[in-house]
Amino acid sequence: MQQEFTGIFTALTTPFQEGKILPDKFTDNIAKYNQYELAGYVIGGSTGENVYLTENERLTLLKTAKETAAPGRKIIAGTGCESTQNTIAATNRAADLGADAALVILPHYYKSLMTTAALKDYYLTIADKTRIPLIIYSMPHNTGITPSAKLIIELSQHPNILGIKDSSGNLSLLEEAKPFMPDGSTFLLGAGSLLFPGLLLGASGGIITLGAAAPELCAQLYDLFLQGKYEEAKRLQLNLVPLNQAVTRDHGVPGAKYALDLRGYYGGPCRSPCSPSTTLPKPPSTKSSLILIFSKN
Amino acid sequence: MQQEFTGIFTALTTPFQEGKILPDKFTDNIAKYNQYELAGYVIGGSTGENVYLTENERLTLLKTAKETAAPGRKIIAGTGCESTQNTIAATNRAADLGADAALVILPHYYKSLMTTAALKDYYLTIADKTRIPLIIYSMPHNTGITPSAKLIIELSQHPNILGIKDSSGNLSLLEEAKPFMPDGSTFLLGAGSLLFPGLLLGASGGIITLGAAAPELCAQLYDLFLQGKYEEAKRLQLNLVPLNQAVTRDHGVPGAKYALDLRGYYGGPCRSPCSPSTTLPKPPSTKSSLILIFSKN
Amino acid sequence: MQQEFTGIFTALTTPFQEGKILPDKFTDNIAKYNQYELAGYVIGGSTGENVYLTENERLTLLKTAKETAAPGRKIIAGTGCESTQNTIAATNRAADLGADAALVILPHYYKSLMTTAALKDYYLTIADKTRIPLIIYSMPHNTGITPSAKLIIELSQHPNILGIKDSSGNLSLLEEAKPFMPDGSTFLLGAGSLLFPGLLLGASGGIITLGAAAPELCAQLYDLFLQGKYEEAKRLQLNLVPLNQAVTRDHGVPGAKYALDLRGYYGGPCRSPCSPSTTLPKPPSTKSSLILIFSKN
Amino acid sequence: MQQEFTGIFTALTTPFQEGKILPDKFTDNIAKYNQYELAGYVIGGSTGENVYLTENERLTLLKTAKETAAPGRKIIAGTGCESTQNTIAATNRAADLGADAALVILPHYYKSLMTTAALKDYYLTIADKTRIPLIIYSMPHNTGITPSAKLIIELSQHPNILGIKDSSGNLSLLEEAKPFMPDGSTFLLGAGSLLFPGLLLGASGGIITLGAAAPELCAQLYDLFLQGKYEEAKRLQLNLVPLNQAVTRDHGVPGAKYALDLRGYYGGPCRSPCSPSTTLPKPPSTKSSLILIFSKN
Repeated sequence: MQQEFTGIFTALTTPFQEGKILPDKFTDNIAKYNQYELAGYVIGGSTGENVYLTENERLTLLKTAKETAAPGRKIIAGTGCESTQNTIAATNRAADLGADAALVILPHYYKSLMTTAALKDYYLTIADKTRIPLIIYSMPHNTGITPSAKLIIELSQHPNILGIKDSSGNLSLLEEAKPFMPDGSTFLLGAGSLLFPGLLLGASGGIITLGAAAPELCAQLYDLFLQGKYEEAKRLQLNLVPLNQAVTRDHGVPGAKYALDLRGYYGGPCRSPCSPSTTLPKPPSTKSSLILIFSKN
Repeated sequence: MQQEFTGIFTALTTPFQEGKILPDKFTDNIAKYNQYELAGYVIGGSTGENVYLTENERLTLLKTAKETAAPGRKIIAGTGCESTQNTIAATNRAADLGADAALVILPHYYKSLMTTAALKDYYLTIADKTRIPLIIYSMPHNTGITPSAKLIIELSQHPNILGIKDSSGNLSLLEEAKPFMPDGSTFLLGAGSLLFPGLLLGASGGIITLGAAAPELCAQLYDLFLQGKYEEAKRLQLNLVPLNQAVTRDHGVPGAKYALDLRGYYGGPCRSPCSPSTTLPKPPSTKSSLILIFSKN
Repeated sequence: MQQEFTGIFTALTTPFQEGKILPDKFTDNIAKYNQYELAGYVIGGSTGENVYLTENERLTLLKTAKETAAPGRKIIAGTGCESTQNTIAATNRAADLGADAALVILPHYYKSLMTTAALKDYYLTIADKTRIPLIIYSMPHNTGITPSAKLIIELSQHPNILGIKDSSGNLSLLEEAKPFMPDGSTFLLGAGSLLFPGLLLGASGGIITLGAAAPELCAQLYDLFLQGKYEEAKRLQLNLVPLNQAVTRDHGVPGAKYALDLRGYYGGPCRSPCSPSTTLPKPPSTKSSLILIFSKN
Repeated sequence: MQQEFTGIFTALTTPFQEGKILPDKFTDNIAKYNQYELAGYVIGGSTGENVYLTENERLTLLKTAKETAAPGRKIIAGTGCESTQNTIAATNRAADLGADAALVILPHYYKSLMTTAALKDYYLTIADKTRIPLIIYSMPHNTGITPSAKLIIELSQHPNILGIKDSSGNLSLLEEAKPFMPDGSTFLLGAGSLLFPGLLLGASGGIITLGAAAPELCAQLYDLFLQGKYEEAKRLQLNLVPLNQAVTRDHGVPGAKYALDLRGYYGGPCRSPCSPSTTLPKPPSTKSSLILIFSKN
């Protein structure tokens, strides 16, 4: 039986300066995150601007994260490419560098050909040939593809498939798939705004962009849930909604990086052509008022 | 002033066997295409399964195409990556290998951030820094992004931007942008079903998947248009519709490759996970009846 | 200050036989619902096939519901037409027949013209001129229109607008709008699968299609929530998911009516062209096994 | 065999003042249209704000149009409701008032239930029971439903179904369905921007909103096509594109009515909540410069 991945995983951003990655700043950020009760880190997700990285940069970041993460923290590496063979190769390279699991996004360029049968074959083939377990990554907003509950239930029977990270922004898949997945399966939420209701409905935890700017609040929410303090959890969740909306939906990765800068991490610019789609709010006078300023938007 | 790219460009498929590219088969196909009145070849488009190739494979195919193409045939290389700097690098590598122009797909992973301003900046920056001219590549079905006519008109003022290949499947952009683009601008259609009406409305020509399986028919249609034989052109266009539908919309790249096999080219399998979404029709008894069999579906 | 509408409202189906409405069967169903702890009934919603009714039929059903409903049960009438003036007239006719509130769907035929300003003007004008309060009805799946949280917050300031019924299937609007709506505002969920998490996040209750086939289970879930029995509520919610999915998403109104028949209510056929999109499951041997049979699909 | 409906049909707007219809202004507009070479008039289409009318208003407009139209002009009445039985009743009422054909929009409220089988049954049942022939009306932008070519080919075999009006904005259905529909079938274009290419590919004519503001230009384009003057037709078509875009896509029905006012017809306001989504351009100094002013946008 697989070991369930539970708790809060921070989706790491990639520090850039003039188009180059900054491994030192990456190390600094992780060192700070190590102070909080987090389950681990994700490298090479949407938050990490993975599509803008070269393979060498991806490996450098993974190596750096592995060296810096506090003991026991899990490292999940985004390794999904469009083709089956490239994804297998990338996953095994990540395994060699010590990744604990691979996050594999649904292939989506040829949308009309990505039938349930094609997706099933894709994940089963990869799971058979990789040395670390897989987490399926569903991100319909960016990919235009939504997997069925039935497919996720079937795939989660494979001993090398841990489960899924679902960034759909609704709870349908959690409700429809999780109760029918094997014991020990992992269901991680990708939407910070659904953390509390999702946990209540049986989610294992979350991979959260907000966790890069406000890791202590995400960890606190998870802790309140574990302790059964549901009223406090609800209040914290609702307070996090405007902030989460600002750093994800409204401003995307540039907004998340802006929030990192405000809170004393290194955020910095995104790689071109990724830039803020609208003007970001003026910085507040004190770092602690981050939530306040975003909430006012 | 730029030189307009006119006529029919064949979108080349990539021959695979057991997951490996077959440069010899690629050469054979091009040698056959050389017999027909085509303007040139496109390497690394959607038809060529570009997203499934490694950078080395892309360069091998480009080199092969350059060596094999009949004199005067233009070579267009798909070089669009998501990031500005990776696209510049890929475009200049293609320039070094003799590509005449680069086909640069709209970046689209972070859909909500790909505003008109971001896209404009993307293309202008690349155009400033590349040694061959660009053709913007709009493929809304796969990317989920549609550029405005205004953006295309503005970008086409840049001396290093030839124009656009539009695979939207409708004629709006052609009608709204082409009359306002500079003289000599290139507007290539990506939809085989719109070749005749598009040419009538001022398109320069097309980059056509159907041109890989039936190059002589596409060339003939273009020729009928040039000669003003509109009734014959209309009949041929309508006859091509079911075939075009079969090799593109219904069966995608696997369908196109199947059609190549039927017509004496090397088609072969696609790279995983790209496979036929539905059962392909049984092969006809003679190669000449290709259109017939597809039309019957 | 307005009075918040709380609890479970059953979305009533409309009984038909050979294309005619059956007021007697409608009465019978309501009489049975009166046994359970429900807050009230909705006539003329999507579940009631409102778009297939004539104005006379709508008024007959409303009158019948008003006469049959147990004392204290609220009657909510769907009165939204596309035009402002027709909606005002329909709402005041419903007021004359004793409706407690009107459910007014977002006008949506001219989608591109239904800007936030147009929608705001629509609801404020209607609210000014009607004798019963309004509940905004958001049903993006059928209308293709989603209102912003900002619009809902603004509209809920009007003394004659109670709040919103949200059938979007996600919790964004609840999280983003409810904390900023005036005290006493009503936020009713339209998705049976989100009842428990929605209540936890502050929803007032729900207008639930599932409540027509399984009113006692919906009432029980609400009661478990009120008592703070969250573990039991979670289990019941997850058990209801497959049933809810079957009677709403998979089979739509025909599925809901089929479930009514199985459970001893009058379901009967829908009006043409509304018919099951796929074959409905075989009836189980006993009525009590309804959930079981749907869960197995 | 059916008689094909050919040529240009003007989609009539509905004159309003303070929310009331103005039959006199409706008469005046038609009297002016009678001067031009038009095939007929459409009452109760999207352009006529049909969804905002009461049944009595619809019948008044139809009667008025019938009395005013020049001899030989065909009157097509929009009669599609969501339910089969209501549509039959409305169509037969239109027949009693002298309509030559009924335009029946695809039912669409319960989108997921409107399968090909449901739609087929809907149209065949109506065609069996109505005293005037039907034209299927596809308007995907407003309805969210697109019929398949196969369905249209099948339905057009029915002796009481003339064919289709397609407002999809692309030419796929024309190319895929028209060659396989029976001789004498009608295929009318709903997009003014596709008139010339559509006619070239075999369309019968068009039902055109632009024909309400610029009937002489639409009639001229059709005439140029009939005479085989394709170069002139192309130039006129391209000149009409910005105007068509302005009165349909950019500003919708309010834009079309504004254009009517500029050109000496009665346009007037739309019924609430239909109003311009953006500021309409300032009126030009002379009526003849209508095209100019819209083209400049």
